[in-house]
Amino acid sequence: MSLHRVLRLADIQLPSEATLVIFDQIIKRENQKWLQKFPYQYAVKGGETLKDLRDFPKHVENLLKRWPSGPLKEISVVALGGGSVGDFAGFFASVIKRGVNLIHIPTTWLAAVDSAHGGKTALNVGQFKNQVGTFHQSKNIYLVRDLLIANPFKNFADAYGEIVKTGLIAGGSLCRKIQTGLEPQQVFELLPQIVATKMKIVRRDPYEKSGHRHILNLGHTLGHVFELQCGLGHGRAVALGTWFSLNWSQHRFADKALGQVIRNLDSIGPLFPTQKDFIKYLHEIPNLHQSLRADKKGVGENTVRFVFVRSPGKLLIEVISFNDIDREIKRQSCDQSEPRQTKRTRSSAATLRGR
Amino acid sequence: MSLHRVLRLADIQLPSEATLVIFDQIIKRENQKWLQKFPYQYAVKGGETLKDLRDFPKHVENLLKRWPSGPLKEISVVALGGGSVGDFAGFFASVIKRGVNLIHIPTTWLAAVDSAHGGKTALNVGQFKNQVGTFHQSKNIYLVRDLLIANPFKNFADAYGEIVKTGLIAGGSLCRKIQTGLEPQQVFELLPQIVATKMKIVRRDPYEKSGHRHILNLGHTLGHVFELQCGLGHGRAVALGTWFSLNWSQHRFADKALGQVIRNLDSIGPLFPTQKDFIKYLHEIPNLHQSLRADKKGVGENTVRFVFVRSPGKLLIEVISFNDIDREIKRQSCDQSEPRQTKRTRSSAATLRGR
Repeated sequence: MSLHRVLRLADIQLPSEATLVIFDQIIKRENQKWLQKFPYQYAVKGGETLKDLRDFPKHVENLLKRWPSGPLKEISVVALGGGSVGDFAGFFASVIKRGVNLIHIPTTWLAAVDSAHGGKTALNVGQFKNQVGTFHQSKNIYLVRDLLIANPFKNFADAYGEIVKTGLIAGGSLCRKIQTGLEPQQVFELLPQIVATKMKIVRRDPYEKSGHRHILNLGHTLGHVFELQCGLGHGRAVALGTWFSLNWSQHRFADKALGQVIRNLDSIGPLFPTQKDFIKYLHEIPNLHQSLRADKKGVGENTVRFVFVRSPGKLLIEVISFNDIDREIKRQSCDQSEPRQTKRTRSSAATLRGR
Repeated sequence: MSLHRVLRLADIQLPSEATLVIFDQIIKRENQKWLQKFPYQYAVKGGETLKDLRDFPKHVENLLKRWPSGPLKEISVVALGGGSVGDFAGFFASVIKRGVNLIHIPTTWLAAVDSAHGGKTALNVGQFKNQVGTFHQSKNIYLVRDLLIANPFKNFADAYGEIVKTGLIAGGSLCRKIQTGLEPQQVFELLPQIVATKMKIVRRDPYEKSGHRHILNLGHTLGHVFELQCGLGHGRAVALGTWFSLNWSQHRFADKALGQVIRNLDSIGPLFPTQKDFIKYLHEIPNLHQSLRADKKGVGENTVRFVFVRSPGKLLIEVISFNDIDREIKRQSCDQSEPRQTKRTRSSAATLRGR
């Protein structure tokens, strides 16, 4: 896998006769000129419905009709879009003719910092989400500054949970930087470091077999519950889940550096949802245990693997009972003993929102 | 991958709570008792329609409703049936929850000697055959004597093309044995040797990338044409394709040992279709070039990779033009210069047919 940072889509040179571009139709207008180079292309409507396995056969038939005529081993499928396009095109590339080259050009921040990396693809089957998928590492990933910067602020803020997660895993300078409430341009500069942190773990466990990769699930245990039961987007849900893990970790380990991270994150305005949001969504979870059980991190009938932050850069995976999670949720939602300083700098938030 | 030979299905012990058995409904009656052990099971109708991608989402939904409740990493999917069941269940196992353990229990000779080994899975998309698939090596393969011996003789004869192909690749004693017109029990004894020959090549090129695996396509270039255009079964078609390659090879290299193989094969009765059958199907090919082009062995607009037998055990892969193939077909169908001795032993054929 090689990672390229470029300024514009026009900077990406691909052999047009050996490339099949699958792109989100909403990006067509501004990128018409670049897309015109490719005789083999397929427009899709990004979003969760694109990941419906029931529509996959029809898409495959359409895509095979547009299949490049070059030698099979050199054909590449390009995924140009957000997470759902990456998942769909990635799964397609992994199963068509038993797997062809895949190139990611993520157009959303969440895809750029997380889902375009690591080789996971997933489709949904009725009510079963992400239950069908493959591991298919991409050959190239292009991070395009202009495409990412053009996103509305909400899209950037939605990715900040995964950015914080990665900073906590990496520790050191990356962790220090993410606490300061970065701006999009700064995150773009940091992308190689963010991606490298994830890929270092992925390479140790590419097929999620040894358990190393489980560290990447920091914030995802409760995150997936928020996503499924409260209808929150993945990024926002992971941010809330990370907040929960951070507070639980601090309650258990009372690490000084971690305490500072929590205070800093609590003050970076709209980038990272914290205590107030957390409590707001808590009562919307009608059946926590059932959600936890459905998640693939479950290790038994009433236990789940949970990622704690011992201190920045030092993570800890433990098997936790559902009752422990219940107790901790209760503690965090009632905890008024330490009223936190909320130094939200409204002006900085406004600046960011304006981008 | 480990290979087990057992006498009866009852000899196979699997943890019933962590196993999902996908089985061909026609085998149910006789194997009811064994199947009853498994609370998680799914009956399918074997055959090409099972491989239709358009039906796959519905199957997945049904299968997820029957999903074992044990820890994910220990769940195994069992494919109990012929080639189509192996392809379907293999593909399912490779994409469900990004891949779970797969166990093959082939019930037909073609599956037992060939398709259950090597990790290839495939589904069809409308008129596009085997265009969707994965590489997913099975954890265990059980070869069950009673299941295989119970097959009608036609099923055994249909697999003989792949057996001959494997003998020609292996050379030595295996090649000498296959020329004698083996009986089912003898082939069952030889299965470990036959499978080992294929797996030695597969292990050098598990994802069909280096080209080593192309040797296994001996007989398949014209074989696939016979299969697609003449509606022949895969095994019979490969036998005809192998016969074509053998004769072409002998015409080019005039190898003494190879000449003897050809004469022997021509005398083993109904097990291996030869010159007469070959000519019979030739005029049924309306568009040879188009079929050759559709095949994934194609390397250009009008060329294809073709496997020759230099001598038993020594194979040769060459890029051949469609015109060369046309000329050779013409030569073989007109070749009356060397009338072959057809020492077909009718009695032996009858004995075999009676099984």
